Amino acid sequence: MILVLSNEMPDEERLELIKKMEEIGLRVHESQGERYRLLGLIGNTSTIDRNRLNAIRHIEKIIPVQESYKLANKAFHTKDSTIIDVKGNKIGGENIALIAGPCSVESEEQIVSIAKDIKKSGAKFLRGGAFKPRTSPYSFQGLGSEGLDLLKIAREETGLPIVSEIMSVRYIDEFAENVDIIQVGARNMQNFDLLKELGELKTPILLKRGLSSTIDELLMSAEYIMAGGNENVILCERGIRTFETQTRNTLDLSAIPVLKKHTHLPIIVDPSHAGGMWWLVEPLSKAAVAVGADGLIIEVHNDPENAKCDGQQSIVPERFDTLTKQLRKIAELDNRII
Amino acid sequence: MILVLSNEMPDEERLELIKKMEEIGLRVHESQGERYRLLGLIGNTSTIDRNRLNAIRHIEKIIPVQESYKLANKAFHTKDSTIIDVKGNKIGGENIALIAGPCSVESEEQIVSIAKDIKKSGAKFLRGGAFKPRTSPYSFQGLGSEGLDLLKIAREETGLPIVSEIMSVRYIDEFAENVDIIQVGARNMQNFDLLKELGELKTPILLKRGLSSTIDELLMSAEYIMAGGNENVILCERGIRTFETQTRNTLDLSAIPVLKKHTHLPIIVDPSHAGGMWWLVEPLSKAAVAVGADGLIIEVHNDPENAKCDGQQSIVPERFDTLTKQLRKIAELDNRII
Amino acid sequence: MILVLSNEMPDEERLELIKKMEEIGLRVHESQGERYRLLGLIGNTSTIDRNRLNAIRHIEKIIPVQESYKLANKAFHTKDSTIIDVKGNKIGGENIALIAGPCSVESEEQIVSIAKDIKKSGAKFLRGGAFKPRTSPYSFQGLGSEGLDLLKIAREETGLPIVSEIMSVRYIDEFAENVDIIQVGARNMQNFDLLKELGELKTPILLKRGLSSTIDELLMSAEYIMAGGNENVILCERGIRTFETQTRNTLDLSAIPVLKKHTHLPIIVDPSHAGGMWWLVEPLSKAAVAVGADGLIIEVHNDPENAKCDGQQSIVPERFDTLTKQLRKIAELDNRII
Amino acid sequence: MILVLSNEMPDEERLELIKKMEEIGLRVHESQGERYRLLGLIGNTSTIDRNRLNAIRHIEKIIPVQESYKLANKAFHTKDSTIIDVKGNKIGGENIALIAGPCSVESEEQIVSIAKDIKKSGAKFLRGGAFKPRTSPYSFQGLGSEGLDLLKIAREETGLPIVSEIMSVRYIDEFAENVDIIQVGARNMQNFDLLKELGELKTPILLKRGLSSTIDELLMSAEYIMAGGNENVILCERGIRTFETQTRNTLDLSAIPVLKKHTHLPIIVDPSHAGGMWWLVEPLSKAAVAVGADGLIIEVHNDPENAKCDGQQSIVPERFDTLTKQLRKIAELDNRII
Repeated sequence: MILVLSNEMPDEERLELIKKMEEIGLRVHESQGERYRLLGLIGNTSTIDRNRLNAIRHIEKIIPVQESYKLANKAFHTKDSTIIDVKGNKIGGENIALIAGPCSVESEEQIVSIAKDIKKSGAKFLRGGAFKPRTSPYSFQGLGSEGLDLLKIAREETGLPIVSEIMSVRYIDEFAENVDIIQVGARNMQNFDLLKELGELKTPILLKRGLSSTIDELLMSAEYIMAGGNENVILCERGIRTFETQTRNTLDLSAIPVLKKHTHLPIIVDPSHAGGMWWLVEPLSKAAVAVGADGLIIEVHNDPENAKCDGQQSIVPERFDTLTKQLRKIAELDNRII
Repeated sequence: MILVLSNEMPDEERLELIKKMEEIGLRVHESQGERYRLLGLIGNTSTIDRNRLNAIRHIEKIIPVQESYKLANKAFHTKDSTIIDVKGNKIGGENIALIAGPCSVESEEQIVSIAKDIKKSGAKFLRGGAFKPRTSPYSFQGLGSEGLDLLKIAREETGLPIVSEIMSVRYIDEFAENVDIIQVGARNMQNFDLLKELGELKTPILLKRGLSSTIDELLMSAEYIMAGGNENVILCERGIRTFETQTRNTLDLSAIPVLKKHTHLPIIVDPSHAGGMWWLVEPLSKAAVAVGADGLIIEVHNDPENAKCDGQQSIVPERFDTLTKQLRKIAELDNRII
Repeated sequence: MILVLSNEMPDEERLELIKKMEEIGLRVHESQGERYRLLGLIGNTSTIDRNRLNAIRHIEKIIPVQESYKLANKAFHTKDSTIIDVKGNKIGGENIALIAGPCSVESEEQIVSIAKDIKKSGAKFLRGGAFKPRTSPYSFQGLGSEGLDLLKIAREETGLPIVSEIMSVRYIDEFAENVDIIQVGARNMQNFDLLKELGELKTPILLKRGLSSTIDELLMSAEYIMAGGNENVILCERGIRTFETQTRNTLDLSAIPVLKKHTHLPIIVDPSHAGGMWWLVEPLSKAAVAVGADGLIIEVHNDPENAKCDGQQSIVPERFDTLTKQLRKIAELDNRII
Repeated sequence: MILVLSNEMPDEERLELIKKMEEIGLRVHESQGERYRLLGLIGNTSTIDRNRLNAIRHIEKIIPVQESYKLANKAFHTKDSTIIDVKGNKIGGENIALIAGPCSVESEEQIVSIAKDIKKSGAKFLRGGAFKPRTSPYSFQGLGSEGLDLLKIAREETGLPIVSEIMSVRYIDEFAENVDIIQVGARNMQNFDLLKELGELKTPILLKRGLSSTIDELLMSAEYIMAGGNENVILCERGIRTFETQTRNTLDLSAIPVLKKHTHLPIIVDPSHAGGMWWLVEPLSKAAVAVGADGLIIEVHNDPENAKCDGQQSIVPERFDTLTKQLRKIAELDNRII
């Protein structure tokens, strides 16, 4: 970390600042420029509260050199990549995991039927929303706990581990007990209290990138969970907000190789929410596999036109089946397995 | 609401759609264009689940004509503006309310001293963070419940009602009992479960606009709280995320007159978080009053350089005092009172 | 196009408006909602000046139903896709065109050597900057006309048609005479006078999407060129500005299938400028081919570390060669040819 | 400027780099961190081509400490603020300059009538568009040179200097001869060839901030003009693109105090284009004066509903007159003059 000091900072103030930094175990390297004096802080700066330094009037700028996340950081990790393994279904490494299922669980028949279909096509996990984040209080809010029960029936029938989104700390216990991978939605990526409580579980967490969050912010949110002790975090790129209105969001596929450079955590892609239209799912999924994603989470519904939510971005099981075949071929080019 | 139908939609499908719409009490007006057929839906469309219509493949586009919020909507409200009154301290109408205090409560001495100072200068409410949303798990997270206790002591000493941020539904009861205005931070603007639970209280809610949320989304979040029964919502513009890096965020002052056009709820401005630098507080506060805001929430600290958070954007009590005098003069030009 | 009228609009004003619309050949369809009256305008509305309608105080909103571009619009075009053919080198249709070369032409030796290398690997066009848009007046601005001369030598030696960027109408004649495809950079996408003058040429135009332009705006800029008579336009997605700072820009690959839905013009991708880093070129290129792009424009340099510009995002000829082999395999999966 | 080097950079490469830097007159200060080695470059780094350094594979990051603009930089300027003086009409310093007039010149009667009205209300400059940048090729494109002639008649009649927008280098001579302040529109802010040619004139240039440009980029564009020899640059904040759709753009008023900190050039505000609606002009103008702007450029039309462009954001002369009275009162609070 580099501190840019105004030349007007009194010597005694500067010396005191240096003393403080040394007291917390850092070495300080001074350097005098034309209009500024620089302090290079050497050592573990990830626990420094940048905000507090910022308050010192003669510090003009604080320039981080290293990343602020440590547990999520590849540079500090023994293994090159973390593999999440739920009863033999893996995310990370050579495996490209397909997670599929409806936006929201609607009935036993619906969820079991979809689960069977996607399993046949090669999906390794079943997704389904029980508690739904909706921008309008007047929209369908999900079946709640009943939805989780139906998901469990589908798991029973197919053996597929289940993925579902948590929206409130009130349901931590229920999710910890019943769900195999707990999803944190884009709008809750910086719900820090939720992240902290999830950090105390052992269940893997599927953490979606916020609508206008940077890659660093996503990693800092992963760090929140990991700092609590739960290192089973799967990152998910699901599109960011841009000025483009033809798509629901803009899928940031560059984020995949960039994340792979900085973190050992697996990274999957959600083409359904990113594009917001069923006919975009196929090309975006292919691109996601080609760019190196560790998996995909795709909305599949057996009757999209009557889906209780997100029908416009869901594909039918037949199309999912065709898609998986195409994806497999792209994966094979890189010796990866779907 | 207007539905744009593809010309390829079979007649029977269209007729069924029209029937459904009529069944939920809407009148439907058809119109045939060159490449599209339009259905105009007349009546209360705010409860329609747009998402579900979207799923119908032959609906090319859904064009809302009216706003989706109803309770927050000026057009459906009897009074022109809602006034929030906490023990005689008002926000809304002719009154410009000043809310001031430190980013975070640090000690009894600190908070009481600041409370006395700002009261003398004309502030009507004391703000102070007890639970702090921080992007890093390694940063100071606030004093928690102890912070609320210290705020209560300051209220006791000065009579100023207190404003503090809630971060988790776990603390709903504690906040309802102890805090006069409960603040929802920008990152929680779409924490729908939190909004729902706050909707069941009577305590006024200070709802901050999300970092990259639109005005409509802010109003939909207010609608969530109001739909639960709590109509005491104060909106707060606190800067939105843009490409500009010289300021922490970009204060969107146009949002004030736009919101005044659409809603009866009071709207205040947070120049401290918007600019992120103490020397921006003064010009932005003046602009906020000139543009018509109903109040300001300003970070004031008696020792910014040693503040535990946000010191760089806090002003000292003396500067706050000078500022209030300037603001008063601008307010008087429009016959408004600080 | 739908006009949303305030209920307070006097009848005579409304009737006059309807009359005006009918006079320019539109049919008008009226519909009375609860709070608004709607006018549906049927016919060719692409020549209506929306701006002027906006000025009428009682028009609350103008809602376009059809796109504003006509010549670039697939719906009004006889062929499904336009193929640009420069001396047998094709862009569009089943062919995936590779355009490669250095950011800027530096010497005869450099450009000829690179041209030979990329040709061997399968590139169909040579790119090279002679006039460079640089954000600082103190940066290297390109060799100018001399650069074009060197490009012509490389064309002579390899037979590869050349692509170069024009920055000013002052050079229209020089480019028309010497360059095979004239590139319009992102920052000039809305330099309307330049677009107009290019519309009078026959040379194909490679039009890059502006840094924060929408897909519709890109198509409107293509429309400017086409309206002048030059229908040989190639669109190029090169990354848009977002909050992400780890990449130079955010490559919007969803734009490819969206554009393919709306226009018959070919669309290529520039992974070099989008990512801004050489190690991102490979994964992004693979994703671009998988998503359906009609071509790629890639910066290749034989000595990136000493390149006069953009060295950090250039790959060496050997890597380009390996890359083309990978891309070819992905292309084959869809029966497309590189 | 600080260079962050990978620890894997070979010593000889590093020594060569240091030698190069010293050869161009910089002092180099080394510092070894845990994972990186830093080089601090001391001296005038504004002419370093960052891009070229970026290409060196072992340079992980380049961190600018000083600004890249020099002529526009307050730190290197003798006077605190530059005052532009056109025949006694001043922009900058204690004077708040009002520039007003129609979006586009339509007829002699129109422009002369508006000019007389705004002069009476206290405007110091007349604006009027002759060449209009329009996103659609089918919209009214302005009267062209005839428009400039009409502006000159209005100047003759009122004595008001005239401000008009240039769109192409083809008209440089015509503008230099006829126009008092040449405006560069937002979309041309990075039309570098235009900036270069304007740098050779003496006429003051009104440079509008690009739709999604940062403050630093605006200053770099000013630097382009100044580097050519023309130091008479007036900056103009006119709203930036954000996700908000209720306003045409988002007026960034924080930019005013930030610019005043970094540059000596005067900064004015365009509330008409920023908000895009006539009823926003008044509150935004008041806020702009309160925040410290050096002037305003406001669209005034005597018949907005029949204006050939931007009627929806134009105010009538009577409203302009009322507005100036309000603005004057706010200005007086800071001892500034309108």
